[in-house]
Amino acid sequence: MTGRDAGLLAPTWAGTPVAGETDDEAWLRAMVDVEAALARAQARLGVVPDGAAKAISAVSADQLDVVELAVASRGAANPVVAFVPALMKLVPADVAEYVHRGSTSQDILDSATMLVVQRVRALLLADLRRCADALASMAVAHRTTLIAGRTLTQHAVPTAFGLKAAGWLSLVLDSIERLESLVLPAELAGAAGTLAAYVEYGRLAGVDAGEPLIAPFAEELGLAEPVAAWHTLRTPILDVGNALQLVAGALGKIAIDVQVLSRTEIGEVAEPAAEGRGASSAMPQKRNPVLATMIVTAARQVPAQVSVLAASMVAEDERPGGAWHAEWQPLREALRLVGGATHTAAELLAGLEVFPERMAANLALSDGSIVSERLNVALAPVLGKAVAKKLLGEATREASASGKSLRDVLAGKIDTALPLDDLLDPAQYIGDAPALVDRILRRYRA
Amino acid sequence: MTGRDAGLLAPTWAGTPVAGETDDEAWLRAMVDVEAALARAQARLGVVPDGAAKAISAVSADQLDVVELAVASRGAANPVVAFVPALMKLVPADVAEYVHRGSTSQDILDSATMLVVQRVRALLLADLRRCADALASMAVAHRTTLIAGRTLTQHAVPTAFGLKAAGWLSLVLDSIERLESLVLPAELAGAAGTLAAYVEYGRLAGVDAGEPLIAPFAEELGLAEPVAAWHTLRTPILDVGNALQLVAGALGKIAIDVQVLSRTEIGEVAEPAAEGRGASSAMPQKRNPVLATMIVTAARQVPAQVSVLAASMVAEDERPGGAWHAEWQPLREALRLVGGATHTAAELLAGLEVFPERMAANLALSDGSIVSERLNVALAPVLGKAVAKKLLGEATREASASGKSLRDVLAGKIDTALPLDDLLDPAQYIGDAPALVDRILRRYRA
Amino acid sequence: MTGRDAGLLAPTWAGTPVAGETDDEAWLRAMVDVEAALARAQARLGVVPDGAAKAISAVSADQLDVVELAVASRGAANPVVAFVPALMKLVPADVAEYVHRGSTSQDILDSATMLVVQRVRALLLADLRRCADALASMAVAHRTTLIAGRTLTQHAVPTAFGLKAAGWLSLVLDSIERLESLVLPAELAGAAGTLAAYVEYGRLAGVDAGEPLIAPFAEELGLAEPVAAWHTLRTPILDVGNALQLVAGALGKIAIDVQVLSRTEIGEVAEPAAEGRGASSAMPQKRNPVLATMIVTAARQVPAQVSVLAASMVAEDERPGGAWHAEWQPLREALRLVGGATHTAAELLAGLEVFPERMAANLALSDGSIVSERLNVALAPVLGKAVAKKLLGEATREASASGKSLRDVLAGKIDTALPLDDLLDPAQYIGDAPALVDRILRRYRA
Amino acid sequence: MTGRDAGLLAPTWAGTPVAGETDDEAWLRAMVDVEAALARAQARLGVVPDGAAKAISAVSADQLDVVELAVASRGAANPVVAFVPALMKLVPADVAEYVHRGSTSQDILDSATMLVVQRVRALLLADLRRCADALASMAVAHRTTLIAGRTLTQHAVPTAFGLKAAGWLSLVLDSIERLESLVLPAELAGAAGTLAAYVEYGRLAGVDAGEPLIAPFAEELGLAEPVAAWHTLRTPILDVGNALQLVAGALGKIAIDVQVLSRTEIGEVAEPAAEGRGASSAMPQKRNPVLATMIVTAARQVPAQVSVLAASMVAEDERPGGAWHAEWQPLREALRLVGGATHTAAELLAGLEVFPERMAANLALSDGSIVSERLNVALAPVLGKAVAKKLLGEATREASASGKSLRDVLAGKIDTALPLDDLLDPAQYIGDAPALVDRILRRYRA
Repeated sequence: MTGRDAGLLAPTWAGTPVAGETDDEAWLRAMVDVEAALARAQARLGVVPDGAAKAISAVSADQLDVVELAVASRGAANPVVAFVPALMKLVPADVAEYVHRGSTSQDILDSATMLVVQRVRALLLADLRRCADALASMAVAHRTTLIAGRTLTQHAVPTAFGLKAAGWLSLVLDSIERLESLVLPAELAGAAGTLAAYVEYGRLAGVDAGEPLIAPFAEELGLAEPVAAWHTLRTPILDVGNALQLVAGALGKIAIDVQVLSRTEIGEVAEPAAEGRGASSAMPQKRNPVLATMIVTAARQVPAQVSVLAASMVAEDERPGGAWHAEWQPLREALRLVGGATHTAAELLAGLEVFPERMAANLALSDGSIVSERLNVALAPVLGKAVAKKLLGEATREASASGKSLRDVLAGKIDTALPLDDLLDPAQYIGDAPALVDRILRRYRA
Repeated sequence: MTGRDAGLLAPTWAGTPVAGETDDEAWLRAMVDVEAALARAQARLGVVPDGAAKAISAVSADQLDVVELAVASRGAANPVVAFVPALMKLVPADVAEYVHRGSTSQDILDSATMLVVQRVRALLLADLRRCADALASMAVAHRTTLIAGRTLTQHAVPTAFGLKAAGWLSLVLDSIERLESLVLPAELAGAAGTLAAYVEYGRLAGVDAGEPLIAPFAEELGLAEPVAAWHTLRTPILDVGNALQLVAGALGKIAIDVQVLSRTEIGEVAEPAAEGRGASSAMPQKRNPVLATMIVTAARQVPAQVSVLAASMVAEDERPGGAWHAEWQPLREALRLVGGATHTAAELLAGLEVFPERMAANLALSDGSIVSERLNVALAPVLGKAVAKKLLGEATREASASGKSLRDVLAGKIDTALPLDDLLDPAQYIGDAPALVDRILRRYRA
Repeated sequence: MTGRDAGLLAPTWAGTPVAGETDDEAWLRAMVDVEAALARAQARLGVVPDGAAKAISAVSADQLDVVELAVASRGAANPVVAFVPALMKLVPADVAEYVHRGSTSQDILDSATMLVVQRVRALLLADLRRCADALASMAVAHRTTLIAGRTLTQHAVPTAFGLKAAGWLSLVLDSIERLESLVLPAELAGAAGTLAAYVEYGRLAGVDAGEPLIAPFAEELGLAEPVAAWHTLRTPILDVGNALQLVAGALGKIAIDVQVLSRTEIGEVAEPAAEGRGASSAMPQKRNPVLATMIVTAARQVPAQVSVLAASMVAEDERPGGAWHAEWQPLREALRLVGGATHTAAELLAGLEVFPERMAANLALSDGSIVSERLNVALAPVLGKAVAKKLLGEATREASASGKSLRDVLAGKIDTALPLDDLLDPAQYIGDAPALVDRILRRYRA
Repeated sequence: MTGRDAGLLAPTWAGTPVAGETDDEAWLRAMVDVEAALARAQARLGVVPDGAAKAISAVSADQLDVVELAVASRGAANPVVAFVPALMKLVPADVAEYVHRGSTSQDILDSATMLVVQRVRALLLADLRRCADALASMAVAHRTTLIAGRTLTQHAVPTAFGLKAAGWLSLVLDSIERLESLVLPAELAGAAGTLAAYVEYGRLAGVDAGEPLIAPFAEELGLAEPVAAWHTLRTPILDVGNALQLVAGALGKIAIDVQVLSRTEIGEVAEPAAEGRGASSAMPQKRNPVLATMIVTAARQVPAQVSVLAASMVAEDERPGGAWHAEWQPLREALRLVGGATHTAAELLAGLEVFPERMAANLALSDGSIVSERLNVALAPVLGKAVAKKLLGEATREASASGKSLRDVLAGKIDTALPLDDLLDPAQYIGDAPALVDRILRRYRA
């Protein structure tokens, strides 16, 4: 009875690469990495012997019992206090005193968290680049493929499926940009932000090992050097959260469109088929859009997790009693969900089936009324704006009620010198859709 | 790399009883229990042979590989589709066909979730009753113990610590009531809510085994019989979420008061001491209020999780593509966090140390100005309301600036025939605090 | 530049009855009502002269300048401190001193808030009862009207539209129950919860006017008598919030179903037509589901507002510095949005157009595969469960690929002694839908 | 009964400059500005006569009836559909047809929203720069002012008040950066994102007035030119929301520190005094930290509002039925709350009173145990790490229990050759606090 989860209730990320980079072991690995980097950085300044730093760097997180540490974390309301003595037992006796030298729980856990974020970010970016490539191809291929533009659930005016794909691409590019521009700093501050114990240990060694320790520590970790310690200045955490919720929302938008377009009555796209994928336990005929569903599932959860991070900005004192502690799980959940969503989206978009003939058939459903906006523009100069709009509304209703085609009804009502067939042709009313696709493709190529 | 967590980032619940009732194995146990209950209920109607129902009921969840099932859950975006064949393999070959007869994923998972909720509720109620007992004793013991009433962080007027404890008790009683009044229904609906396949299997057996199956199924599970199936009528889930966030908030209120009162400068209460509890990794003198911190940590997260459940009420169609799936983890997180919080609160409240002498000392800090409201009332009939308020404001400031006592400053300003010493005595200005304590104790005893 | 809103960005409630019960003037009216009720209750105990209570009760909120009071509220971070002297100016000079006697800002504002909630609740319940009536009629009328059951966006098995309507009814009944069972207490506590100043004024009059004031005060307001004052025991507020988010979610579920069913390609229902309703600024043919949209808009916002209320449970001390203040706007927003949503839903449901022939046409789209679950059940005893499921999957795909009907494909694959036409008839596969409708109707009638 | 608010329940922003930039009138002004900019941009391309563009640009929003428009917005679930004909009535009859030419509701409202955001941003930045200046001065002035560093509510180790101020400054600088880097694009897309009607009107005039209209339109508005239209690609909205929640959290952190430090028992800072500020309705002596309270109030609400924006990223189709509509009020609330918070923070920080002598007195409360971390470091090489930590824990408890000073207890336990007085002097244990202040000041000056 350990409380351990494998993702049984989280198909979005179960078994995907992000699972292995965000579990307890992943955090423990990062914590070990941080203690090792601290020792090496202190060794560079002469506060810790090189040999000790090497010995600490040789420890593997696998040697630690994560369940035991989790339970012990209740003693201090954080896992580091129990972790440090456990780590000390894994190094030679004369090295133990150099472990965690001058440090404080939050320096270790915050830095470890940033390492985890950095590792997850690499996964996200790789997935998102696959998404972008797939979408760019789709946008090119369907630059002029006609599809009904839908607004408030109703057919509005025609558009190109390629513009839809380009719009999705635009969101993926935004996601990549936001993730790439994240600054992920190390944390080095000491018990209350003054670095006092680091300084004190430096003094024992006759060096200044407080503020001068920040840069080498960050360097050893491959993280950014912070201007200010961020124990209670939580910009770095919220920046990550904000980026994650943008990615989740971007993919959620794509996924909900896929769900709508794959409705039985619409059928304009289908998820890539795979053995056992989308099966129902009872209905043999079903092919559920499960990839899109798993992405939507993530998008529905991430904003709530991030709202906890935002609320945790309000962290009292030098280190708070709860605001910090409340960040850990929501941040992990957000990372996992987004990591699962990007992985799933890459698969979905690489294999999405597109059915232009169904798009055309659906476009024809409304019998030309989908271009009534255009008729409106064309008739307004002739009849006046208000009269034109009224007449079109009436014609649409009459056509719908009588079963006659809109073309025929209109022909009976207005001057047939107008090129009605052209005006009613959806293909001639997609505005600058191709040029708009190109704008986004230029950004993609840049 | 399995993504398994043991609570390393969740000290609130790591290693507490709720951990074992909410992990993947717990859900799997409940899923097995539901399939067994379904078979037994169908056996009662004659749709499944008794022997088959017994064989299914004999399966233990331990025989299943939870990690494998978690990964397989991605195929259908839920864990049941892979679980059913795995379960079928664990029964004799001729029994397999009776497993999951006529059922659908959501019937199993929703019912299993309610079983989990019911098991967790029992833990919560036991903890909360321990809290209530501790608080009732505290309220009795400190029915007239003086303490500064604080509003907007400032001393306001005196109150009794027992009234504070009784207020906390009031919240715990609310929590108990809300949890006890929860109705936890079984789910039985079939693929799209009509029970059609259950009916169909009944037809094969010559019985009506659709709607008549609901009651025995619920009975076998020890859950309530639903009036309506709730695949997309999610009242039962949101009711649970709403109750959980009330409990979380109630305990969070208690915990934040404990944090304030145990501040170094205030020192009016202390958490129960325990070996290793509240230790800092660097500061030997510290005794952090870690129990309160772990409770606050929960209270900061639960509302966000519940907001996901509330949003999932908006679930389209007969079964939705994401709204349902997004409920699972947030509900589990809320259960765990609240379960950890109640467990922690029971320990905190049973051992809370109370220091009346520090309360008295702090009360004296403001040198009588804490009863200026009373002086205001007493002086108003003599001097007029506005004049009295103005004079008291001036006297308070003068006392503060000059270092003189408020009594002496006032004595120099007003008719000393007034019983100034009595009027300035905090003990004589606690209003009806004891009677208010008694009101709450009467509710507790009822 | 006053910051005043009329709902330009909130069509959900703009101009609906709830708007007038939740604006600043409504709160001000309630605040005046509370001060009057306090004076009358104190008059009953002899603390305030009857004439004074009458004079205070004669004040109308219209005499107050709400903009001025709003700006002045910044002085104390709440509107009551400026309101009290403004109110005093509206009564005869010798009555002024009896205004707000012994009271504190939060007693007034909390009680006023509960009055507002009570007034809004009456609106909500009236609307919801209209919804329930409309839905009950719909459930009866369409008890056996065939419609495709849809799960994860795909046709699953047939169901009855009446069962869908009955499900919606079930949610509306839940909403009514949750609102009706809300207990809305008055607040009477004094500066720090002890009633001290009320007691003190009582002492001047020679009566006990602390705890004995609670009951008459609540009675004068028509609110419940609280067991405990709730300055920082915020159960009553969160109870309201929890109920509101249940109502919002319930109506949101109905609305999203209406949106899906009125999609151009589905067209199974339509919103009631009205002059100018659902118009587009550019597309004359459009008839947008704007009522459903306004309801969904509310459902998307309410959980976030309620999460603020839940977080505000964690309110430190006797009265907190922010947790209380953060409740006001979110609670008002939630009330307004839900009030607008119930008003809109009543109109939507009373006039919803239902198109059974479109339902039938859509049902036919999948050419029988919508009953493949049934075929599965029927074939399993003959062919074995796994073989049957596999064969049906193949047949479905073959029919879809070849353009042949599923019936013909199946006839070529299996023993035609089976009554294939019956088995493939959706009308013969709606399980116990009518009986399930009846269960819900019985609850409605009870 | 109009539902109009003046901020009676929102002291954070009532009467502050942001109120006038975010009310319904402000949105209406921006909508008028957008229609005018559209006409001018179209005039530049030759689609609209210059005179018509001038006439449209001459309309003032004051001529419109905001209440009437708000109520009418229910017809289309957005305010633009009713706004356009109202605007047309305000221009000469022959100009009316050039109003809103080729446009769609969302182009107008999205662009107007960005104008509002841009206007509010200017207010925020001005306030935040005032905050930064005040904090920089504070950091310089108190670079070495001793104060207790507090963690988990307990004294931890000493720090400098200037470092605290510099940390706050760091958050304000982050806020400024995030706001400055926001890209605020115009929206121009047409009914379903293809610009079709703009193109069509261009065709009437013989010019390409679709994609080439984007740049001049954005230029006329002073907004950024979008690469892609963002009807359902909501990055720009979430970017704004994310920045706002960072600012809210940053100021909330400062405010909660002010609240803690101004607690009666701590008294290390006080809010600037002002006539009537911080008054209680009942307690003449009180001086509540109301500015901090109003800021905290904002910080508690903004994340919830932003979570709605994040959820609205998941917007189906070319324009959604609810996701867009749900953004408006939460975005406005977030803008207002943050605008009120920055205004309040600027006043708070410019006048914050700082009491170094109270800081010193509080530091002395723990009788030296606040530097036990240092003693730990100093004693560890002599006694060994574990022994030193144990001995210090015992000495602290013994001192506390016996009433003896920690110095005396220690002197009796260990080799007095150690410079105990120096080691116990908090002023000698603030680590690199001054250097850390300087790092942040360098960023400020850059």
